[in-house]
Amino acid sequence: MKGNSSYTYEAGERHAHKWGYTDTRFEFVDEGSVRVTGDRYPICGYTMPYFIPFAEEVLGVSFRPGDVLPERPQEELPAPRENAAFVAALREKLAADQIADSDDERLRHSHGQLSVNEVYRVLYGAPLERFVDLVLYPQSEEDVHFIVEMANAHGVCLVPYGGGTNVSGALSLQRSEERPIASVDMSRMNRILSLDEDNLMACVEAGICGRDLERELSARGYTSGHDPDSVELSTLGGWISTNASGMKKNKYGNIEDIVLEATLVTPTGTVETLSATPRNSTGVQPRGLLFGSEGNLGIITKAMLKIYPLPKVRKFGSLVFPDFATGVAFLKELRQGEGVLPASIRLVNNYEFRFGQALKPAAKGIKKLEQRIQRFVLFGVKGFDINELAACTIAMEGTATEVAHQEKIIFSTAKKFGALSAGASNGQRGYMLTFGIAYIRDFFNQFGILGETFETSVPWDRILVVTSAVRARLWEECEKRNVVGRPYLSFRVTQTYHTGVCIYFTMAFSSLGLEDPEHTYHDVEGALRQVILDNGGSLSHHHGVGKVRRAFLPQVHSANSMNALRQTKNAVDPNNIFSAGNGVFGDPI
Amino acid sequence: MKGNSSYTYEAGERHAHKWGYTDTRFEFVDEGSVRVTGDRYPICGYTMPYFIPFAEEVLGVSFRPGDVLPERPQEELPAPRENAAFVAALREKLAADQIADSDDERLRHSHGQLSVNEVYRVLYGAPLERFVDLVLYPQSEEDVHFIVEMANAHGVCLVPYGGGTNVSGALSLQRSEERPIASVDMSRMNRILSLDEDNLMACVEAGICGRDLERELSARGYTSGHDPDSVELSTLGGWISTNASGMKKNKYGNIEDIVLEATLVTPTGTVETLSATPRNSTGVQPRGLLFGSEGNLGIITKAMLKIYPLPKVRKFGSLVFPDFATGVAFLKELRQGEGVLPASIRLVNNYEFRFGQALKPAAKGIKKLEQRIQRFVLFGVKGFDINELAACTIAMEGTATEVAHQEKIIFSTAKKFGALSAGASNGQRGYMLTFGIAYIRDFFNQFGILGETFETSVPWDRILVVTSAVRARLWEECEKRNVVGRPYLSFRVTQTYHTGVCIYFTMAFSSLGLEDPEHTYHDVEGALRQVILDNGGSLSHHHGVGKVRRAFLPQVHSANSMNALRQTKNAVDPNNIFSAGNGVFGDPI
Repeated sequence: MKGNSSYTYEAGERHAHKWGYTDTRFEFVDEGSVRVTGDRYPICGYTMPYFIPFAEEVLGVSFRPGDVLPERPQEELPAPRENAAFVAALREKLAADQIADSDDERLRHSHGQLSVNEVYRVLYGAPLERFVDLVLYPQSEEDVHFIVEMANAHGVCLVPYGGGTNVSGALSLQRSEERPIASVDMSRMNRILSLDEDNLMACVEAGICGRDLERELSARGYTSGHDPDSVELSTLGGWISTNASGMKKNKYGNIEDIVLEATLVTPTGTVETLSATPRNSTGVQPRGLLFGSEGNLGIITKAMLKIYPLPKVRKFGSLVFPDFATGVAFLKELRQGEGVLPASIRLVNNYEFRFGQALKPAAKGIKKLEQRIQRFVLFGVKGFDINELAACTIAMEGTATEVAHQEKIIFSTAKKFGALSAGASNGQRGYMLTFGIAYIRDFFNQFGILGETFETSVPWDRILVVTSAVRARLWEECEKRNVVGRPYLSFRVTQTYHTGVCIYFTMAFSSLGLEDPEHTYHDVEGALRQVILDNGGSLSHHHGVGKVRRAFLPQVHSANSMNALRQTKNAVDPNNIFSAGNGVFGDPI
Repeated sequence: MKGNSSYTYEAGERHAHKWGYTDTRFEFVDEGSVRVTGDRYPICGYTMPYFIPFAEEVLGVSFRPGDVLPERPQEELPAPRENAAFVAALREKLAADQIADSDDERLRHSHGQLSVNEVYRVLYGAPLERFVDLVLYPQSEEDVHFIVEMANAHGVCLVPYGGGTNVSGALSLQRSEERPIASVDMSRMNRILSLDEDNLMACVEAGICGRDLERELSARGYTSGHDPDSVELSTLGGWISTNASGMKKNKYGNIEDIVLEATLVTPTGTVETLSATPRNSTGVQPRGLLFGSEGNLGIITKAMLKIYPLPKVRKFGSLVFPDFATGVAFLKELRQGEGVLPASIRLVNNYEFRFGQALKPAAKGIKKLEQRIQRFVLFGVKGFDINELAACTIAMEGTATEVAHQEKIIFSTAKKFGALSAGASNGQRGYMLTFGIAYIRDFFNQFGILGETFETSVPWDRILVVTSAVRARLWEECEKRNVVGRPYLSFRVTQTYHTGVCIYFTMAFSSLGLEDPEHTYHDVEGALRQVILDNGGSLSHHHGVGKVRRAFLPQVHSANSMNALRQTKNAVDPNNIFSAGNGVFGDPI
């Protein structure tokens, strides 16, 4: 994925535990400057003189080469729990390289990308307490059926594993599970099985990651349009089981809109609709069981997706508003008024705007002059306050007519709200910055900074209420716990809906001097989630429940709803082979 | 609902068993002309000279005043099955007028609007075999909880009853049910409980019918946008439990898009999400259990709906295409190309076009001249064949900009397909004709014509395949069964989707001389449904499964899916109090 929006996601070697690719990491150029290695993203390959000073200012701690914490050496894993009959049965049918139990593979498959409780622990904190005992690599739906059948027969638990990017603790293992646990890595089931150009559908294996899906579709002139922040790494099966949302939702929909039908293999058989038709009224839809199933019910093997011809025109844009509240009012008017929405439109608050600016290279020559003029207009003519303004990034896709129409409506509406256009390149940069966030998290992790993103959906009139309340509570919690320096909190509106939006928060604070960093972090995050719920926000917009949010479920669903879901699971997995314990299926906390 | 698209649905006395209002019925003006009484619809109040001749031509039988079948006198119903303890418990809490058991009320609540197996039987055919024993009228959610609790405690079955417009046999009762059955008529739960103008949501009781909902919303400047053919009579709860679709789906969505959350009262408690937020990823969504539940799981009491400000502009349009296939190609281009869709766009085939023409008044004076010119252009200049052409009705709604943009794209695209604009008034007329269809059905019913609509969703490339196959099979079936005259089959595309469309068929043939009209009809319809399934169509787009389509479910869902759904029901209704037996919950056939 180069800076030119060519959307060619390139493969590469992945970090064992951190986010992303080994070619991409922050390194110090000198005491106070960093640069990102490689050339994978727009933020790669240049010196960033403003970033460390910005981070030191907002977090109030020092980020110098000497402050880097050493990674903990990886300890030897406890011996895998064995089930000889199960493994013998598997060996009858699967190839040798489809069954693995090395420490390295077991550890990689025993966590997701939950920042503090998973990545930070693996690299710096207290070791994980439970590991998968075996890693299996099915290559076909038949393999999956066989694995599930054998696991069910032999009392072995299964955890479906897609891209390993989950951030809700869904991949972490319950200590209470005494049976052997096998991770079922779906990465080899990554083929497009059929592509129907007339009806614009494609049947795709669920282990395909977004990068490969988009590369293969685009070679044939199509796109799925699903573009989550994790698109390079996360998989189709993961998207369905997490109930994912992509950045270009306004044009292509969320995952439940993109996927027509999918196949779930459970211990008692397959949950699937036998043909994919446009829309149905055939009683309660079993497909509803797949979205948000979080590995609790079975393994998703394939899905029928809507596909779209590659858009003829792609155009970025950006806007600057005097403040966040005005930006919100603009988004509301755009959504509820004309209802013309670009593929993606996101509004970042002031902190996040300045964060983005801090990642820029040093300005010089003509660029410096341009920036001066820009600054003059913003702060002189328009009277914007650099510590108040908010920015909007816009990505439009479609036919020439469609994009032109959107552009006209969006920019004329923005004008009414006193916004200033900040150009296409800033828009593109803002859109692509998304892909760098988790690398930045890992950079700060090594200084003992505990950081995480979390999201919610809220009605329109709760946006400012929720963001203020979260901010106030975070400061309070950190003060109470004597956190060193200052907490960081920024947020953005990443999706708009008729009745409200998704707010995406980024939070960080230093663990230096904390007695139990992981629990502290968990407690603070829990307190913020309660503040969100108390003020009308939802438990999660697209990250899911997993384990970190399951204690809140009784505030979301009636007891009878949860009971019904548990009985449904019982019907398809009577032996609880899929014992991941996510959401309502976990042990009550 | 007057001819002027003012959208004021007026209340009125309903027919006991036939469709709609008693002020509206066909009556003979003379031997060969009819007129529709009253002034409720655009087809009311004028003489139709072409209608009887058209019907006689296409069906090949005679429709003269003397051919009308007498309605069967209503026999006395069998005594209700009693459960004295249940009734005594109810009387403790409910008012006297909330409990009814007159023959009239029992009979009205023992059927829906399934044409042949319900309405025809009640009026002309073999009497129904099972009736509800009691009719209850809850006035609050508390009443519903109480009724469900008592029914569960006393072994009484419940059938939720909304507008009584179901056309899948969902309201017909299973003979095998030996316990008393109470119909729970929701019509008194028809209030808007709250309306949130900021976030555009309204919480509404489920017994409200579309007419009342729209009247009350519109008095406050809003609309739900849900406009099914049955909107005057059907209810919110019915829409959810049937998984309904409205004519203006392109702008407002199908019912699952319109309803954010809803409440289902079951014997073990309430299935509901405790707050309505824009979009969520909180595990498998219990709300999925409500859509398509068809009365099998409990009673839907209220729902949180999206609402929209009343559109500033409403505009109709119509197009004529040389043939149906060209119209289909146009719709496909509009959907998959620019993706600009008006609130409603529907394409009728030639038969249905001529059917609409036959309902017109005699042309005279200036109108006659206009029609001559129109005919000249169509058949002279454009060379259209009156027996081949197809027509499209268009309803646009929104801001002035939105409607202007749609108009531009739609008509310029239509031009590429050789279409001719046929004016706004034809468009409006076509749109409103929908509301007359069921009255026409009832008119023909009295001549022994068995008629029904049925629908399916199909991928784009199956539209012509499915329509041809259905037509061929219908002719074959009728020939085989020595049906008098000719069968009638017309169809329209009522909804478009990215991957295909909804096709809505109207079928009719004469029962004269048939030994067992109802079974014959049922068998023919079943044969056509099999043809649809065999050629890539779905079991139902929006009418539901009920009882008439449940035998086909094993062709739609895997056995394991159906088992999972049955277990879910068992969790919330362990005593099978909601024993309606629709869809997968019915006795296997």
